[in-house]
Amino acid sequence: MAYKLHIPGPIQVSEKTFKAFSQPMVGHRSKDFQELYARVQPGLQKLFYTKQPVFTATGSSWSVMEAAVRNLSVKKVLTCMNGAFSDKWYGVATSNGKAAEKLQVEWGKPVLPEQIDARLATGEFDALTFIHSETSTGTLSPLEEVARLKRKYPDVMFIIDVVSSLSTKKIPFDELGVDVMLAGVQKALALPPGATVFTVSEAAFKRVEQVAGRGYYGDFMEFRANHEKNMTPSTPSISHFYALESKLGEILAEGLDTRFARHLENVMIVREWALKNGFELFPELPYATVGLTCIKNTRDIDVAALVAWLKQNKGIIIDGGYGKIKGRTFRISSMGDETTAGIYELMANVSEALKAVTA
Amino acid sequence: MAYKLHIPGPIQVSEKTFKAFSQPMVGHRSKDFQELYARVQPGLQKLFYTKQPVFTATGSSWSVMEAAVRNLSVKKVLTCMNGAFSDKWYGVATSNGKAAEKLQVEWGKPVLPEQIDARLATGEFDALTFIHSETSTGTLSPLEEVARLKRKYPDVMFIIDVVSSLSTKKIPFDELGVDVMLAGVQKALALPPGATVFTVSEAAFKRVEQVAGRGYYGDFMEFRANHEKNMTPSTPSISHFYALESKLGEILAEGLDTRFARHLENVMIVREWALKNGFELFPELPYATVGLTCIKNTRDIDVAALVAWLKQNKGIIIDGGYGKIKGRTFRISSMGDETTAGIYELMANVSEALKAVTA
Repeated sequence: MAYKLHIPGPIQVSEKTFKAFSQPMVGHRSKDFQELYARVQPGLQKLFYTKQPVFTATGSSWSVMEAAVRNLSVKKVLTCMNGAFSDKWYGVATSNGKAAEKLQVEWGKPVLPEQIDARLATGEFDALTFIHSETSTGTLSPLEEVARLKRKYPDVMFIIDVVSSLSTKKIPFDELGVDVMLAGVQKALALPPGATVFTVSEAAFKRVEQVAGRGYYGDFMEFRANHEKNMTPSTPSISHFYALESKLGEILAEGLDTRFARHLENVMIVREWALKNGFELFPELPYATVGLTCIKNTRDIDVAALVAWLKQNKGIIIDGGYGKIKGRTFRISSMGDETTAGIYELMANVSEALKAVTA
Repeated sequence: MAYKLHIPGPIQVSEKTFKAFSQPMVGHRSKDFQELYARVQPGLQKLFYTKQPVFTATGSSWSVMEAAVRNLSVKKVLTCMNGAFSDKWYGVATSNGKAAEKLQVEWGKPVLPEQIDARLATGEFDALTFIHSETSTGTLSPLEEVARLKRKYPDVMFIIDVVSSLSTKKIPFDELGVDVMLAGVQKALALPPGATVFTVSEAAFKRVEQVAGRGYYGDFMEFRANHEKNMTPSTPSISHFYALESKLGEILAEGLDTRFARHLENVMIVREWALKNGFELFPELPYATVGLTCIKNTRDIDVAALVAWLKQNKGIIIDGGYGKIKGRTFRISSMGDETTAGIYELMANVSEALKAVTA
């Protein structure tokens, strides 16, 4: 049985995307690949609202999250933490031999600019890691306000993970003035996992030049040098370039603003369903993210049973909560190709499941 | 126009593989993925002739080549170099902050055990990097003899790249007694690029525990811990697991020995063609590799014209030589799904091209 995925990544991949994904190989040092690389670039730049090159790494998000810290920090990294993924970044930084300090916030609460400001004021830091949309809790931290701090701290490199927010709302890289922005392609871009798109500011490139021990595979200088030739440092996942080409075409045809509005409409349907059915949202309002909804199990239902019922009876997969909030929350993705009609239908199915497991 | 690839990677991917590659997504922390992971494992172990777990990294070969050095060396790495790819490993080691020393051999010559022995005897090294089949020159270094040195140097970690030899001939990991063996999937396994399969000895795992600064994304301990749960440390390229499942099924149905014989037969056709047409092989005999042929342009033909003619008139892509031996050599891949009949047909086309460009 083929299931319909409504977990927050990987999400449902369309037939059209799979068709693009499965186009015949070309040599990755050939003109054919260079042309493909060049065709993808303008769409990526529009999506990131940037004039900087946008790179595509062969690897999942952590490959670039790790690389960003290796490329940019010499003194100390401030790791902003408010969920399973952002919490992990501290250990990733230290495992790479980087000094790091935790800014730990309760799960479900956003990381706020005043909290960051207080730490950066010590002058100890040269980089910070920040997850815009913490997928484990469905929490959206206020990126615009955080980015505004950059003016006060030009020497601190702002590394921003937009894994589950890219393409669900406008995130204008150049205007924000942050230093690195990255996202795996298996969330709102609705591609199969295995590649990560990212961009790097001019200020960050200046820093990179001064940092030793960056390694090779994730070295931003290698990405930039190869980009000049419309190529990648190592053999790329060519299939992902084809899939990106197809998906970016769709995104630009729909229009970015229309896409953002659709994502917001979708998520509102899920949020309203949660409230109408006696649940609460897990993230503190108004800090709920747009691509998915993390619902607090305030009715103390059997979440595992709900998830199992939907899978068995409807072929729909939702998520039963991540890590320490498993069972206390459940998560529903409404990002990617989902339509408003599709989300209404989804929630009707969830209603039926809820009735069945609470009967 | 769809081309037929006969460059040494990426190579031609079959319709069947693409179909497997494009199966619907599953959650990477779900039972569905765990089952897929478990299904792939026995085939990988047969291919590697090992009882150790075989891991699948999301990334091209360099991600694991770099990781191996980061995981295993504290003192100094001996980098065995005899072509574009092996030469590069020295810089990769030092860019990761590792002390390294070059064992540089002329391109086209193999790296020999006595050369390695002389360096290891100094006692300065705790790891060596060695490319079995150097794809840029088509040279196969004597792995069996090199592996035999391991008994004299148990504390030196032998890191072996089998990128263009895995599945073209028997490479029995456990019996060789080496420490790490790795291969990208876009060469003889004939999958789209984007993943790398590798295995690690028990001795190497003991070393890893003592090495700091391994990072996260390529940390062998993370791979082992997640393997216990039939999972990967980070979001995997699920499509590559599907493709591996399909390809390993084919390989085992054909039989490993039959596959090795087919690859040898294929390459003999290309080698004979080269000699009959007045060329020589670039690698010193008997050190020619099995998956591809690097032909020395002893007739001083216009290689670029040959390559262009084949592409334009036959839709066949061969390689016009790599790096500093571009034009002085050309390379033809006969690995993966190629049949003897197909290689005869290929070489008839190359003959026609040769006639056209030398007329």
